[in-house]
Amino acid sequence: MNNLKYYLDEVQQLFEQEQFLAEPQELYAPVDYTLRLGGKRIRPTLLLAATALFGGNTTAAHGAALGIETFHNFTLLHDDLMDRSPLRRGQPTVYRKWNENTAILSGDTMYALSWRYFLRQPAPRQLDILRCFAETAIGVCEGQQYDMNFEHQPNVTLDQYLSMIRLKTAILLAAALKIGALYTNAPDNEIEHLYNFGIHLGLAFQLQDDLLDGYGDTAVFGKKTGQDIRDNKKTFLPLTALTLCNLEQAARLRHLFSNNNTCNEEEKVRNVMDIYNAVGLRPIVEQAIDNEFQKACQYLDALNAPEDGKAPLRELLATLVGRKK
Amino acid sequence: MNNLKYYLDEVQQLFEQEQFLAEPQELYAPVDYTLRLGGKRIRPTLLLAATALFGGNTTAAHGAALGIETFHNFTLLHDDLMDRSPLRRGQPTVYRKWNENTAILSGDTMYALSWRYFLRQPAPRQLDILRCFAETAIGVCEGQQYDMNFEHQPNVTLDQYLSMIRLKTAILLAAALKIGALYTNAPDNEIEHLYNFGIHLGLAFQLQDDLLDGYGDTAVFGKKTGQDIRDNKKTFLPLTALTLCNLEQAARLRHLFSNNNTCNEEEKVRNVMDIYNAVGLRPIVEQAIDNEFQKACQYLDALNAPEDGKAPLRELLATLVGRKK
Repeated sequence: MNNLKYYLDEVQQLFEQEQFLAEPQELYAPVDYTLRLGGKRIRPTLLLAATALFGGNTTAAHGAALGIETFHNFTLLHDDLMDRSPLRRGQPTVYRKWNENTAILSGDTMYALSWRYFLRQPAPRQLDILRCFAETAIGVCEGQQYDMNFEHQPNVTLDQYLSMIRLKTAILLAAALKIGALYTNAPDNEIEHLYNFGIHLGLAFQLQDDLLDGYGDTAVFGKKTGQDIRDNKKTFLPLTALTLCNLEQAARLRHLFSNNNTCNEEEKVRNVMDIYNAVGLRPIVEQAIDNEFQKACQYLDALNAPEDGKAPLRELLATLVGRKK
Repeated sequence: MNNLKYYLDEVQQLFEQEQFLAEPQELYAPVDYTLRLGGKRIRPTLLLAATALFGGNTTAAHGAALGIETFHNFTLLHDDLMDRSPLRRGQPTVYRKWNENTAILSGDTMYALSWRYFLRQPAPRQLDILRCFAETAIGVCEGQQYDMNFEHQPNVTLDQYLSMIRLKTAILLAAALKIGALYTNAPDNEIEHLYNFGIHLGLAFQLQDDLLDGYGDTAVFGKKTGQDIRDNKKTFLPLTALTLCNLEQAARLRHLFSNNNTCNEEEKVRNVMDIYNAVGLRPIVEQAIDNEFQKACQYLDALNAPEDGKAPLRELLATLVGRKK
C-alpha cells in the first residue's frame, strides 16, 4: 500500500493534466486561476485513499476527485465574495482580480463543472455517489448561511457553533471519504465508520484552525494571529471562553467582540488574549481537539480494513491536527 | 392524450405540493419566495409532455420537472443580481428584497436542490439524463457570460448573438424535452428531433421577445416597450437593423446605442424606432421568427410519434411565438 504522499502526488498530477481553459475565456480564466492556485487538495486525496483502502482502483475515481475539489473551490470563491476577503492563498480573490459578476458566474460554472467531473466515469454505485455529493452540497450551503447568521446573532452557543462547522467543513471531508469508498464494494457499515472518521477529522481540523488563530506560531502558521479577534468572529475560542468566564470577564469579552469597542486592534487582541489566559482557555481547547482526534482514531480503528490502507489516513489526520500520534 | 393545459396543471400542482421551506429560514425563505413567484413553468411542462409523447408515465419524471424549474429559477436569481434588475414578475428580486449575499447563497442552494430533485427518482437512462442536465447548465453559464461580454463589445454580429441566445435560452428548453423523453425508451434519433424542435422553439421565443420590446402592444405585452433600447441592449432588433442601414443610419444607430448619446430616454426610443421603421425592420424580423417557427414545426413533423402527443407541443409553440398555426 502507499503512503499519503503517493495520493497527494496522484491528485497533483491529475490537476496538472486537466485542461480548465475554454471559451469564453472571460468565464474560464477565473476557473483556471482558482483551480491552479493550489491548496492542500485534502478532499480529493482523502477520496482516492478511501478507494484504495477498500482495494479499489483509484483511476476509476479520478473524475470524482476532480469534481470534489472543483466543488470545494467553488464554495471558497463564493465565500470570499460574500465575506469580502481580498486574499486567498496569498493571491487576490476572483472578485478582486476581476469583479463581482465574474466571481458569481465563474463560481456557478465551477459547480456545474464539478457535476461534469462526477459524471465522467460511471460506477456501479453511481446513484449513491451522486446523492451523497448532492446532499453534501446542500449541507455546505446551509453551513455557510449559519456562519453568516452568527455574525449578527448575539448569543451563539457552543453547540450551534459545532453544528455549523460540521455542515460548513466536516461533511465535505466525510463525503470525500464516503464517495471514495463507494467506488469499491465496501460494505455500508464500514463506509459509515469511514464517514464518521471524516466528521471528527473535520471538527478537529476546524477547532485546530480556531486555536492557531489565537496561539499559532506566526512563523509556522504563515499568517498573523488574532485575525478572528479583529474580525469579531465567534469561533470556538471566545465561545468556550464564555463558558469559563466569571460575569465580569464575560461582559468584558462580549464588549471587546462588539462593534462598540473603542480600543485599537492590537490592544483589542491583547485584551482578549488576556482573558483567554486568565480563564485557562488553551488547555481546554486542546482537550476538545484531542477528543475529536481520539474519536476519529476510534472510527478508524473500528474499520475492518488493512492497517496499511489506513496509514495514509492516519498520516493526514496527524498532519491536519498537528499531532504526531 | 392530453392538451397543454393538462400538463401545465400537473406542473402547477407539483409545485403547490412541494415544501421548499426548511432551516435555516434565512436561506430557504428566498428559495421558497423565488419558486412560488410563478412564471409560465414552460420547462417542466415541456418535460412532462415529452415523457407522455413517447408513452411514458409522467409521474416518473416529476423529480426532473421540479429540478429543471428550480435550476431555471436559480439562473434568473443570479442573473437578476448580475444585471441589477429590481423586479422579476412584478415583485422585488431577491437581492433587493434581502441582500446580495442572500441572493448568491440561496441561488447556489437552488442549484444544489435541483440536483436533489433530479436524483429523487432513479430511471433506466439516469446517466444520460444527468449528463444532459450537467452539460446544459455549463452551456447556460457560457451563454450568460457571452451576454455580459456583449455589453462592452462594440461589434457584436448577428451570428454571435444567435449563438449566445442558443446557449442562454434555447438549450435549456431543448434539454427539458430531451430529458422528458429519456424517461421513456424513445429511440435516440427521435429524441434528437425533439431536441432540435426545442432549439428552434427557443430561438423563435427569444426573437419574438426581442420583437415585442420594439413592437409589442403594451396592454397585451404587460410591460413598457423600448426597454432594451433604453438599456442599450444589442438584441436581434438593432443587430438586424444594422445589416439594413445605409452608412449614415448605421452611424446614427450606433451613436444612439452608445453612452455618449445625450437625448432623453423617450426621444432616444423614438429616434431608434424611426430608424427601424425607415429600414423596414419589422417584417424582416417577423420573417426570421417565422423561419425558426417553421424549422421547429419541421422537426416535430419528422418525429415518429402519435399526432395527439405532439398537439400540446404545437400548442406551446403557438402560445410562445404568438402564432395560431
